[in-house]
Amino acid sequence: MTATTSPRTRLSPDERRQQLLELGIRLLTNRSLEELSIDTLAEEAGISRGLLYHYFGGKQGYFEAVVQHAADDLYRRTAPPADGAPLERLLGSITGYVDYVIENQDAYRSLLKTAAGSNEALRAIYETTFTALADRFFDEEPGTLDLPDTPAVRLVIHAWQAMVEDLVLTWCARPAGLTREDLVAVITSALPAIIETLP
Amino acid sequence: MTATTSPRTRLSPDERRQQLLELGIRLLTNRSLEELSIDTLAEEAGISRGLLYHYFGGKQGYFEAVVQHAADDLYRRTAPPADGAPLERLLGSITGYVDYVIENQDAYRSLLKTAAGSNEALRAIYETTFTALADRFFDEEPGTLDLPDTPAVRLVIHAWQAMVEDLVLTWCARPAGLTREDLVAVITSALPAIIETLP
Repeated sequence: MTATTSPRTRLSPDERRQQLLELGIRLLTNRSLEELSIDTLAEEAGISRGLLYHYFGGKQGYFEAVVQHAADDLYRRTAPPADGAPLERLLGSITGYVDYVIENQDAYRSLLKTAAGSNEALRAIYETTFTALADRFFDEEPGTLDLPDTPAVRLVIHAWQAMVEDLVLTWCARPAGLTREDLVAVITSALPAIIETLP
Repeated sequence: MTATTSPRTRLSPDERRQQLLELGIRLLTNRSLEELSIDTLAEEAGISRGLLYHYFGGKQGYFEAVVQHAADDLYRRTAPPADGAPLERLLGSITGYVDYVIENQDAYRSLLKTAAGSNEALRAIYETTFTALADRFFDEEPGTLDLPDTPAVRLVIHAWQAMVEDLVLTWCARPAGLTREDLVAVITSALPAIIETLP
């Protein structure tokens, strides 16, 4: 327990909640979401179970808050740079994604396992995040990839996202002779290449 | 229960086991693997729990047998045609995959959910199947895609497989204006297109 997680530190309820979620994500490095109970968190944070129930309303509420917190973090970290050519901006966004996964790979794996399971609310947060990330391709601001917003393009982007997730996690475990820059370049070029295969 | 699953039919132990596994896969259409207990199977097959334990050794053994059976089935169904140009053979194999998923989509979804979870043995069967399917690209027989068997190409094939899985399952739920033939063509062309992005 670090000084900043002490209950004695004067924090607003919102700041305290954020801090507990960040601790939750860090704890996921060594265990699955299912193993990360309110009890574990209370123990690690040095605060009462009752207070944690007050913040999250229960185990499912806590799970949802942790997954949503990770999703928001991922969304922020993958914000494309404000300027540049479309493929450069995509490259910047992908670099943010790859770095996020490198830094949080064990927690990310834990979250994906749970999101892939039978918990519908967690699955929904995961899908909503995929969609929000895809929406960036269709922003009307200049500098985004000029993709038509059709169901077929959305279908392909979703599948590309699944590919990227697998690619980055597998690469983290076994880099296969590719540098981080190689990986980012492959991911960035693959999207237009796959979209080109559409009829 | 159909006549062919009756215990009175004279079958060898191997045939009986196969039949129970096929029934297991069919039952996955309406429930997850976790919900498909030995008890459910015994009830549906009209045979004793004891006999099912004899065949599968317990719940985990039964889960592994069901997943392995589905994996073997998928492997057979995606066998490429014996002759033809590399991309035609890949197209044949992909058509087999797409048709398999169309026919078994609910059971396939149930199996994937479980394989993505924390059951290491099921995860291993899933990964072994991915690898066996990828191995087909490196067969020395003429007519296969001329891909170099490097860690980077293996990494990309694995990610493409994850993409294909997502693409076909999402398409089953919402075809996005693509025919089955369009889908097969996109999947087939995407692989060389992604491999081209490697440094």
